[in-house]
Order: sequence, then structure tokens, then C-alpha cells
Amino acid sequence: MNKKVSLTGIKPTGMPHLGNYIGSIKPALELAHDYDARYFIADYHALNQIKDPVKLKDMTFEVAAAWLACGLDPNQVLFYRQSDVPETFELAIALMAFTPKGLMNRAHAYKALTQKNAEEGNPLDDGVNIGLFTYPILMAADILLFDADLVPVGNDQLQHIEMANDIAQSLNFNYKTEILKLPQPFTHKEAGLVVGLDGRKMSKSYNNEISLFLPEKKLRKTIMKIVTNSQTIEEPKDPDNCNVFSLYKVFATSQQQSELRAKYLAGGMGWGHAKEALFEAINAQLKAPREKYFELLERRDYVDKILLEGAEKARDIASQTISRLRKSIGID
Amino acid sequence: MNKKVSLTGIKPTGMPHLGNYIGSIKPALELAHDYDARYFIADYHALNQIKDPVKLKDMTFEVAAAWLACGLDPNQVLFYRQSDVPETFELAIALMAFTPKGLMNRAHAYKALTQKNAEEGNPLDDGVNIGLFTYPILMAADILLFDADLVPVGNDQLQHIEMANDIAQSLNFNYKTEILKLPQPFTHKEAGLVVGLDGRKMSKSYNNEISLFLPEKKLRKTIMKIVTNSQTIEEPKDPDNCNVFSLYKVFATSQQQSELRAKYLAGGMGWGHAKEALFEAINAQLKAPREKYFELLERRDYVDKILLEGAEKARDIASQTISRLRKSIGID
Repeated sequence: MNKKVSLTGIKPTGMPHLGNYIGSIKPALELAHDYDARYFIADYHALNQIKDPVKLKDMTFEVAAAWLACGLDPNQVLFYRQSDVPETFELAIALMAFTPKGLMNRAHAYKALTQKNAEEGNPLDDGVNIGLFTYPILMAADILLFDADLVPVGNDQLQHIEMANDIAQSLNFNYKTEILKLPQPFTHKEAGLVVGLDGRKMSKSYNNEISLFLPEKKLRKTIMKIVTNSQTIEEPKDPDNCNVFSLYKVFATSQQQSELRAKYLAGGMGWGHAKEALFEAINAQLKAPREKYFELLERRDYVDKILLEGAEKARDIASQTISRLRKSIGID
Repeated sequence: MNKKVSLTGIKPTGMPHLGNYIGSIKPALELAHDYDARYFIADYHALNQIKDPVKLKDMTFEVAAAWLACGLDPNQVLFYRQSDVPETFELAIALMAFTPKGLMNRAHAYKALTQKNAEEGNPLDDGVNIGLFTYPILMAADILLFDADLVPVGNDQLQHIEMANDIAQSLNFNYKTEILKLPQPFTHKEAGLVVGLDGRKMSKSYNNEISLFLPEKKLRKTIMKIVTNSQTIEEPKDPDNCNVFSLYKVFATSQQQSELRAKYLAGGMGWGHAKEALFEAINAQLKAPREKYFELLERRDYVDKILLEGAEKARDIASQTISRLRKSIGID
């Protein structure tokens, strides 16, 4: 297998929503066809936010079940928990010796926090812990440990890949060897904007999301809440200025889209009908994964076994990187 | 064995000098009689300064040989390399999630660096890497991993023990369990000031040190360089205002001290004689360790074996701490 390596980190911070599914999960899973794909659940990253042990444990398990339910095939890709590959932490500590503090001072997420503190008249570092401040280094370790060629990211994460490159280059340069492979960012083709119930981009921070594995009845009920205008049934409607149709475009076939578009333009169709069509389209895609998800929720041992088997293979790769590192830095 | 645990970190940053021997090595080794003593060579700490692999490797080996030569008994105490206990790094990453950034901003060593940068008109964080900035966290991990009751420190290191306590308390408090044992600093009884060749405190930064394992001839030659005043042989001399006698007090028996004191006061003794007496006293203490040291330098495999055996035992303890931690934080 001489495929290039693609690496995806999954943060266990709650059930994905439709926006995550379309924007991250589906494209990441598609990469597995062409790349040697490695997916890990970043549980130690999550520790910076989640200090409740039951919650952290459950969320880690649930996000693993969600990705498996969405079609992640553990026989085809490497799937593991970050914490099961402790080589990550040694690499992170080593990278810290090659990371200028100034680089972390410039991290977008950290700067946003200090700016918020400044605006609110708090001390700049109020509420910032070191895990958060050095987050890009642990992420660099996640990536560099696995010789990743590509890391699929959104634009907001491009800086993390740049930083991983900066740190790896600084280490490689010092020892005049390519100890760590330099990763490239990979921005997937635009998946189409997934709008939330209120028409803004679907996001937990807007509280407008449709959760990925809502039971059927609840899914329909939630879709019925999508904000529409107050046009009467009789009036012709504009599909290109409609939250319902915007989501429909993401989930329906082009054939279905043409048909519903025609009904919009003809008039005589109420919002209830459009929403029902949207529900059908979403449900058609999610019915099977949802069933699989709820089935996996009852099979914790099975999911654990998959993750542990993944970790075993992951540690084979990780220990090679660490042993290469140790030889180079004089710790062996 | 219900002895309390004492933990000592040894930085492999070059051959110890007489000041280190009297001020740190001897008292640390004496602790091993009353405590369950654990000593480790902090090689990943050293990586922040030493980016030459051969140097780092050699210095780690040499400092191990030096401590063994000074009487560290690996059958009685635990002796290991930090890097051979990678549980350290996982604990460090976990602790980072419980360390407010403000705590690190206040670390003495970091503040000294930024102050120096400010004075020289450089950017505050110039030359500061993250390993250096977060150094107190890795040190806290070293300590907390081994349930240390006591950590022998000089006054300049008291803050590190305070910080280890702060971080451990914050973690314990969050989970409402004593997951990590709170360590106490242990300042040994004043060993007497060890002055250097120029009469100031012996220190590498003053370049006035007498290296611990100088070959005999070189040791004598170095001692002859100790700065004295220009009194003639005939004049009576003041032992309490003399660099030579100051060192003699540290190495000679009280009987020997009384005899040399009398000669000082009587007059008729030249500095060469006093220095020769000092050489004899130092050499009497160091002859056997020095021989042992040079013997160990030829037995790299033997020293490695001792360290690896120590690491194996150390990992037994470390893995218990990590498994306790993981259960508590929800990563297991």
C-alpha cells in the first residue's frame, strides 16, 4: 500500500449535527477510498473543556459510535483513541523544546480568548489553561506522529497545519534530517452551506442545529421548526431564498430537487409539504446510520474492541516515529 | 517498607563540581538512608537547552556514572532516566489542562528571561521556547507521578514545589478525590558555603568551579589557582577570611581543621602548604569515587542496564498513578 496518509482528528465534544455530517464526516469518510486514512478521537484535547469524567467517557464512546454508524470501516482505516497512543504525549513534550513561545502567542484561538478578556476588562489570560494555550503543539504531535501527508481541515484550522509545519521544520533543521514528515492541509471541495433552523450557518454556538441521530419523530418535529416566510399556500415561492430548500439541495438527488423546485415555482404548495419532502430526503440518508448508531450504543464492548485494535496498529506506527526521534535527539 | 518517598531530579547538563557534590549530591544520597529515595535523570528537561544529540547522550550517561560513583546504590534506591518512564509525558499533558496560564507567567525562571529581554530591548519572549515556559509542569509530572512526599530543593526551586502543589490540588479538587499526592519541599541543613577559585560561591556561571572528577594532577593544579592574599610566609594568617580554609572546612575532619587553623594563626606557613593540605583533604574524599567514575565510563552497558532496571520498577509505580488518573478523568 503506497497510498498517501490522511489524518483526521475527531473531538468528542457532543453529538455531531447535520452540518458536521455534510461538512466533515462525509468528506472525511470519502477520503478513505483514496488515502491511507487514520482517524482518532482526541480525548486528551477534550480534557481542556470537559472536566466531568462520565461526560468525557460517554462523549468519546458516542462519537466513536457515530462515525462507525456513518460508515467508517475499521478494516479499511485506522481508528483509535488519542489516549491509547501515549507516544503522542512524548512527541508533544519533545516538540515543545522546538516551539518558540511567540508562535503560540499568535495562535488564533488563544488570541481570540485574550481579546475577549481585554474587551471584558479581565486579565488577558483569564480562564486560559496551558492545555489550551499549547493545544496546537499537541495537535502537531497527533499529526507528525503518523507521518501524515494530508490533514483535511476547514479554513479556521489552516493555522494549525502551518504551525505543525513550522515546529517540524525547526526540529528537522536542528538535526539536519527529515525526522518528521511535513503535512499538507487539505480543504475539501465546498459541500454547500448547511443552514440551521434559523437560516444562519448550522452551528452549536447559534443553537440552531439539527442533531445527526434524532429519532425519526423528533427529526420531523425539528424540521417543522425551520423558519420560513409567511407566504400563503397559493403563492409561488422562491426556492433560492428558502431555508428549507437550501437544506433540501444538500440531501436530495438532483431529480428530487428539480421536482420540488417546480412545485415551489408553480404555487399551491404549503411549507408543510416542503418540510415533509425535506424530512423524507434527510431521513432516507440517515435512517440506516441512525439504526446502526442506536445499535452500537448497546454494544460498548464492541466499539471499545475496535478502538483498541486500532490503537494497537497505531502504536506500531507511532513507536517507529518515536524511536526515530529518540535516536536523532540523543535520547535512546 | 513504609518509608516516605523522596524524589530527586538530576539535570544532565555537565559534570558536577564540588559545590554540587557538597550541596546536592551528598545530602541527596544521605536521604536514601531514611527515605524511599527515587532519583531520575531529567533528559527531556535538558532537551530544552541541549540540542546536540551526542552531547545530550554523553551528559546523561556521565551524570549517571557520577552519581553511581558518589555512592548511589541502585539496589537501595530507584534510579532511572525520565525518558524511560513515558508515563511522565501523559501526566504532564493532563496537568496542563489544570494549569492556569497565569501560573506559568509568574514562574521565576520565565520572568527572569522576559526581564532580561526587556532590559536588552528584545521582544519579551525572545529565545523562550514552550518547553522552557512549561518546565514547571513537566517537573510537577516528574514529582506527582511517583507519589513523592518530599522533594529536596534549594531555595531557588521552592516555587516549583509550590506549583506542583497548586496544579495537583486543582486536579484533585475538580474530581473530589486525592488522585495525586501533594509533595512537600525539603531543604537540607546548610552544608556550608562552597566557594569557588575566586572566593565567590562556586558556580558554573562564575566559571570558578572545581570539577568533581578532575584527575589527581589536574585537581592539585586547579587548587593551586585559588585566590589568596599576598601575605608573606612569616605572617600569621586569618583562617576565617581565606578561600582555601573555607573549602578546607567543608572537606577536612574537625581534627584536621584545628591543626591547620593553628598553623594559620602561628605564621610561618605559606599558601602553598595550605593549598596542599586542602588538596589532600579533597583528594581523600574523592579518590575512591573518582576511580569508580572512570571505571564506569568504560562500562556504558553496565550503567545502561542499571538505568533500565530502575526504569522497569519506576514504570510499575508510574503506571499505577496513570491508571488512577485515567479512571478519575474519564479516559480509560
